[in-house]
Amino acid sequence: MSDMDAATSAAGNMAEACAARRRKVAEGMRGSGIGQIIVSAAPSVFWLTGFWTEPHERMLALYLDSSGRCVLFGNRLFQIDSAAFPFECVLHSDGEDPVEQLASVVKPGKIGIDKTWQSRFLIELMTLRPDLAPCHGSAPVDAARMRKDDVEIGLMRAASAMNDKAMAAAIGALREGMAETELAAAIVEAYTGLGADFPIGPQCVCFGENAADPHHMPAGTALKGGDCVLIDIFTPLSRYWCDMTRTVYFKGLSREEETAYEAVRAASAAAIAEIRPGVPLSRIDAAARGVIEAAGYGSRFIHRLGHGAGLECHEPPECSAASGALAEPGMVFSVEPGIYVPGSFGIRIEDLILVTEAGCEVLNHFPKEVCIIT
Amino acid sequence: MSDMDAATSAAGNMAEACAARRRKVAEGMRGSGIGQIIVSAAPSVFWLTGFWTEPHERMLALYLDSSGRCVLFGNRLFQIDSAAFPFECVLHSDGEDPVEQLASVVKPGKIGIDKTWQSRFLIELMTLRPDLAPCHGSAPVDAARMRKDDVEIGLMRAASAMNDKAMAAAIGALREGMAETELAAAIVEAYTGLGADFPIGPQCVCFGENAADPHHMPAGTALKGGDCVLIDIFTPLSRYWCDMTRTVYFKGLSREEETAYEAVRAASAAAIAEIRPGVPLSRIDAAARGVIEAAGYGSRFIHRLGHGAGLECHEPPECSAASGALAEPGMVFSVEPGIYVPGSFGIRIEDLILVTEAGCEVLNHFPKEVCIIT
Repeated sequence: MSDMDAATSAAGNMAEACAARRRKVAEGMRGSGIGQIIVSAAPSVFWLTGFWTEPHERMLALYLDSSGRCVLFGNRLFQIDSAAFPFECVLHSDGEDPVEQLASVVKPGKIGIDKTWQSRFLIELMTLRPDLAPCHGSAPVDAARMRKDDVEIGLMRAASAMNDKAMAAAIGALREGMAETELAAAIVEAYTGLGADFPIGPQCVCFGENAADPHHMPAGTALKGGDCVLIDIFTPLSRYWCDMTRTVYFKGLSREEETAYEAVRAASAAAIAEIRPGVPLSRIDAAARGVIEAAGYGSRFIHRLGHGAGLECHEPPECSAASGALAEPGMVFSVEPGIYVPGSFGIRIEDLILVTEAGCEVLNHFPKEVCIIT
Repeated sequence: MSDMDAATSAAGNMAEACAARRRKVAEGMRGSGIGQIIVSAAPSVFWLTGFWTEPHERMLALYLDSSGRCVLFGNRLFQIDSAAFPFECVLHSDGEDPVEQLASVVKPGKIGIDKTWQSRFLIELMTLRPDLAPCHGSAPVDAARMRKDDVEIGLMRAASAMNDKAMAAAIGALREGMAETELAAAIVEAYTGLGADFPIGPQCVCFGENAADPHHMPAGTALKGGDCVLIDIFTPLSRYWCDMTRTVYFKGLSREEETAYEAVRAASAAAIAEIRPGVPLSRIDAAARGVIEAAGYGSRFIHRLGHGAGLECHEPPECSAASGALAEPGMVFSVEPGIYVPGSFGIRIEDLILVTEAGCEVLNHFPKEVCIIT
């Protein structure tokens, strides 16, 4: 096949995959009694159309109804090539009102709204169309996106293989006195060399007691002997995200940190051992939590066990005590138990896990044994 | 003053500034007849409380009423220190429903909703409280945030001064055959060295005809002689954003590009010459657009002239044909005329401009003359 034939064929495959996805979503809508939805999240629009843009404050919306009708709304700046799609595209310029265009298409009654759609668009739509009854509308797309197909699984494996290499580069870059921001920049550089889609920041890098804050942003703190080093790194490759955390020790660790580390590692193993089709995600969370509670750190594991990953770094399914879902083949989510002791240290170990027919596949292969950098 | 005294004093100043800002917003609410609002954007919450977190899929919301009541809602993971604030904080854990907490505080009737609040929260709030009438609610905070105070102006100047240096580093890094992603990574490295808050990506780097797409993402395209190089760089320093664009030429440019470049440069100058208190922002847009139209490129200037900048890279006011606002002292916005010729080239020149009592101050000092890199 020539390069041009290959490109044409890949585009054709993508168009076909998107059409199949739209049919699947329409089927899900019929099953759940939602006649029409507005999809606004860029990754969902991409998954359903093959078209990606970051709309920022401008409006991007895909209207779908359960009969299969599909209309894409977007700003002319997004450079949407209407002729490339087998459905209607309605474009607007800066200064025109895209919600008026949308309001002329929707039908009266119940309408499902994507969970992150900006409220200003929804409020304006409700004002223009008081005959609408907005409801939560992400479920049909989320449910379909959760079960990755073979192409997507291949991309998730490739992204996590890259992340294993980036983690090795990050740990190899540790030097006494370096700032967290320097390590974060080294990780971005490693990602660039490894072919990641684009340099993304800030990466999550914590030295010493900063690791006790799961939301810490890299700052000027300098690395010193005895520090734990928590490295949580994530980036897209071919649009699909990797996300992994390791905690290592610079020149040594305390007895308490070692005990806590082994509890986190055992929690990770216990959760992974539970994962197979049909198991409630809440039970996987409980498996990890039970190990950490038994080690006396229950109150220090202050977040859910994990989150789905794919076209977004955080996407459904959530793996927590509150999850109602069961594991299904094709799901990818993180398993990331942690222990956080304010003023002292933090530990997190995170892998992405693919649910398979037989059980599960851990997409990250970077070791999890205690690692002391000397 | 000891370091600790200085830190205590800075925290006190911030707390006082935030209290004054909340009073100003409450006053704006009384003036516009909105009795209560929900503020959800992280920068607005920071501006009003001094507390910043990136909530992602979790809920962060600040409830304000026009009598000055203030309640902060957030997830325990955000590590909100309730004791640090002179107002009520209502915290939730993963698995608890923060919207129920919020629903128990709001009063019946009209409620202003922040423009980017996620629809899923709004839909749930409307379900729990059918006695509410949601309306657009960002205006009181946006109007107050638009007029930067002296401390903020100092921070905006410092960020743009840093950006001038980053632009010099970017242009200095140009090498034949380098990929756009390599230049983007070099910019992130320069920002790190210059003390930017964190490495942010992707920076906007376009070689040759890629510059004709204002939303182009850096990719593998290699730099070659005769390419235009569009560099649009932006990052926060001490939380305040810089944002500047220059277009330079690698080893030469065509006669047409030179003509178009001079039209863009003249459009920038014409717009800046218009800026002083009281002038409609739409007239500033028109001044630039008129120059580009006169040069025969009117249809190639496909976006608004500019956007506000501050705690966000894009924030009010918008400077476009549709803007209803007048320039006021303390406003900072971009002036970024452009010409985009698909398949051929793109040009954009962007500065941040501060409106002063006397006229305006251009915060970027990087030259705008035609620049050929040899």
